[in-house]
Amino acid sequence: MFLDTPLYRCDALGRALGCAVSIKLETANPVRSFKGRGTEVVAGLLRARGEDATVCASAGNLGWALGWSGRRHGLDVTVVAARTASAAKLDQIRALGTALELVDGDHEAARERAAAVARQRGIRLVEDSLDIETCEGAATIGLELLDHATSADVVLIALGGGALATGVGYVFKTLKPDVEIICVQPRGAPAMTRSWHERRVVTTDTVDTIADGVAGRHPIPEVLHDLLQTADDAVLVDEKSIITGVRMLREHAGLLVEPSAALGVAAVLEDPVRFAGRHVVTIICGSNVDLDAYDRWSRVAGLAR
Amino acid sequence: MFLDTPLYRCDALGRALGCAVSIKLETANPVRSFKGRGTEVVAGLLRARGEDATVCASAGNLGWALGWSGRRHGLDVTVVAARTASAAKLDQIRALGTALELVDGDHEAARERAAAVARQRGIRLVEDSLDIETCEGAATIGLELLDHATSADVVLIALGGGALATGVGYVFKTLKPDVEIICVQPRGAPAMTRSWHERRVVTTDTVDTIADGVAGRHPIPEVLHDLLQTADDAVLVDEKSIITGVRMLREHAGLLVEPSAALGVAAVLEDPVRFAGRHVVTIICGSNVDLDAYDRWSRVAGLAR
Repeated sequence: MFLDTPLYRCDALGRALGCAVSIKLETANPVRSFKGRGTEVVAGLLRARGEDATVCASAGNLGWALGWSGRRHGLDVTVVAARTASAAKLDQIRALGTALELVDGDHEAARERAAAVARQRGIRLVEDSLDIETCEGAATIGLELLDHATSADVVLIALGGGALATGVGYVFKTLKPDVEIICVQPRGAPAMTRSWHERRVVTTDTVDTIADGVAGRHPIPEVLHDLLQTADDAVLVDEKSIITGVRMLREHAGLLVEPSAALGVAAVLEDPVRFAGRHVVTIICGSNVDLDAYDRWSRVAGLAR
Repeated sequence: MFLDTPLYRCDALGRALGCAVSIKLETANPVRSFKGRGTEVVAGLLRARGEDATVCASAGNLGWALGWSGRRHGLDVTVVAARTASAAKLDQIRALGTALELVDGDHEAARERAAAVARQRGIRLVEDSLDIETCEGAATIGLELLDHATSADVVLIALGGGALATGVGYVFKTLKPDVEIICVQPRGAPAMTRSWHERRVVTTDTVDTIADGVAGRHPIPEVLHDLLQTADDAVLVDEKSIITGVRMLREHAGLLVEPSAALGVAAVLEDPVRFAGRHVVTIICGSNVDLDAYDRWSRVAGLAR
């Protein structure tokens, strides 16, 4: 259901960006993000061990995916999210019938609360990016790219907690290290990127980005350790570039994406010389977006052309 | 590149439509429609026979796909299209470097001109729906559905020239005849549907629909003959339902589609009792759409909610 997703060259987007662009599309599945790859692993393992409940904190996509996998495998799933999380994502979680607990504060508050729920109820906390299954799920994307994107020079990966980047990056650094693995994060949520450059955990007090899927403030030390082994670079991009990326993916690729999925395009926009003429793979990691906001971004970007 | 496309249950769309809906997504490829399945067959055969040029008439998607396959296989491709064809589609054909000849009149005028070009130059005319390769390409969708959509009750298929419907329908009627094959056409371009019901070719003088990909007036007798063997029903839908379908696929599935791809949803909207509680597969056949018009439809439908 989540494996063997489309991978294809998008000429129109490549012309607009001045490089060869391949799209790895992770949105054409029941939860519209790549997160199902990992939650299917987790839910299957939990069920095999006879467990019947689990909890996670989520900005939305992990929660939807874990709820979906939980239903499929007969697990009782609780999702903890910030009250300010994407309404579109929270609606999908509610519609599944998954238990949803909302907390004040941002995603870091949700992480704390989810950990408390796990302790109180004695159930497994699924911690995105820290738990190996979530990285294994992402790694399957890397394996598929390795099989089919044989001429790739660069893979651009949205960086949030780090599961996608460490999972995909691990595969390449182990099996095809000459492909450049570049993580991309919003300048408004730069904690992991700063940590990568300083080689130590750097936290921030706030986040300010429309890319809600990658808006963390407290990098996990173990994940940073892995990311230092698996990424060749980590770059920050402006909100304006993310919005233009969302618009270009619509205009040139016919794709409706959430902002996190436009980070790769934003990275090319901000440093075109670096990518000129190269074969760039960008992973379209999610399409769960509040449509009113999406329409606003499309219009704003349209005016700015 | 065009085979093994995503097939997945879309719960949100199913809730909105009152049935179980599976999406077969034919847009995540370099030409953003299912037409590449057939053009890859045609271009490969032509090349194997030592031919070096071919021509087709197209409302846009076939031309883009044939141009793409031609470039890949080293064939010189000429596409003939109506001057009024979708600007987005014509732009993509031009960008490929494919020779594009525009004619006054509608798609039927383009078909006549393409036949004349083929005669004059002594090259193969690729005639959509009549040429078996174009139906074989569509039939591969049927084989994939048969393998994976094992609980399907109904397959809803956009009906234009008939390649998609006869190709997919043939597979089901041969191998799993209890699955209902329903063709859907706009009320503003009803020639093939009327022909199916009257069991003889019925032509119309005009067409009036936003679903440019299925706007023919002159059904091909041989295709009608096949369609009578392969379809269980053919229904007409209003423009308003097509627009609502486009909007619902955006809102509930996160998909940007061209109007032809919304015909299946439109059919459910117009006859919900017929589909209530059943498992319906709808083939999302293309996403090549003029965005200004698309935005207009989204807004109009938004107001009508």
